[in-house]
Amino acid sequence: MTAELSKTQRSTMSRHPERATYERDIAFSILDEGLVAHVGLTTPDGVVVLPMTYARIADKLYLHGAVASRWLASFDEGSDVSVCVTLLDGLVLARSAFSHSMNYRSVVAFGTATTVRDDEEKQKAFKAFLEHMLPGRWDDSRQPNRKEVAATTVLSLRIDEASVKVRSGPPKDTAGDYALTHWAGVIPLSLTSGEPLPDPAMAAPPAVPAYAKDYSRT
Amino acid sequence: MTAELSKTQRSTMSRHPERATYERDIAFSILDEGLVAHVGLTTPDGVVVLPMTYARIADKLYLHGAVASRWLASFDEGSDVSVCVTLLDGLVLARSAFSHSMNYRSVVAFGTATTVRDDEEKQKAFKAFLEHMLPGRWDDSRQPNRKEVAATTVLSLRIDEASVKVRSGPPKDTAGDYALTHWAGVIPLSLTSGEPLPDPAMAAPPAVPAYAKDYSRT
Repeated sequence: MTAELSKTQRSTMSRHPERATYERDIAFSILDEGLVAHVGLTTPDGVVVLPMTYARIADKLYLHGAVASRWLASFDEGSDVSVCVTLLDGLVLARSAFSHSMNYRSVVAFGTATTVRDDEEKQKAFKAFLEHMLPGRWDDSRQPNRKEVAATTVLSLRIDEASVKVRSGPPKDTAGDYALTHWAGVIPLSLTSGEPLPDPAMAAPPAVPAYAKDYSRT
Repeated sequence: MTAELSKTQRSTMSRHPERATYERDIAFSILDEGLVAHVGLTTPDGVVVLPMTYARIADKLYLHGAVASRWLASFDEGSDVSVCVTLLDGLVLARSAFSHSMNYRSVVAFGTATTVRDDEEKQKAFKAFLEHMLPGRWDDSRQPNRKEVAATTVLSLRIDEASVKVRSGPPKDTAGDYALTHWAGVIPLSLTSGEPLPDPAMAAPPAVPAYAKDYSRT
């Protein structure tokens, strides 16, 4: 793996090049912090974007769904996809309406998603899906049996043709607007967890496990 | 407007039909709560998904970007797009790894996005973008001038061919797994705001406006 992602026509930003980076490590850290990827695919009915959970192992991004899914069936021979993960960090309030923005970090990856056929790789992906969501949970759950593995389609995509966009910091107004007296600044935003809610179906609820308390993505 | 969205091959869910709804009001409420839409488009280089801010007015979804954007230029004559907005509500911890899930609400809309040429409609969209992000801010900011309106491409998409997916509540394990003693339940997640950070460039910072304090999407 090189330190830089591959720049192609598709992965090269035409707007706000100052927000773009092609550093693999930054892309990986954003992918590791996110929980939902938006996956776009061109189908015979037109383009479709759907939210999916995912996980990363080295430079591979894994997606999964039910074998019975019409959407996933179209990947059989490999499909051109675009996968986007966006983390929202804040609202940026400028003095002018026009200069309002958001602070965010996003990765857009492109490439061919192919079905994982190897059972060992599939099992590793299963573990990665759960550990990505909640580190520590894999060992404290009933692990997939052969039937469940067979009922699941796992796709992999090499993270190489990709770009990262990051906006952070205070608003940038045009020079003449700095004299205006509207409040300007940033409202920070983050994904926050609440008190875990035990499943009412637990007859004798055990204590909330340490990994589920004060859950945080960062 | 009918109460139901249009069902087509593309907007009909093949998996988890129990999570699907086609009620327009629910779709609108999800779109109104979200901040970032993931927009997919088929380009000559392949499919591309990008995060964009947006706003809704009645049954129209508005997107915007710089006129100079290569991405937006491809919409000139109207482009087939898919727009997805996802709200993440929680992690769902089942007893089996396989039955883990997330609680979420998502809208996936399909259709042709066209460039808004009418200046009055464009100005209304500008106001909607800001008020969608932060109600009350439009009147407390310097509103767009003619040059800024001209430099911005605004796209509109009719929200009609669309579907909504909602998962809520506790985990659903397979019957045999309920005897297992792993903790099961939901870790609630929500987008939360922090203390507003004033722009250091303000010479005499006014008090944080009421609409920016305790910011919440719900």
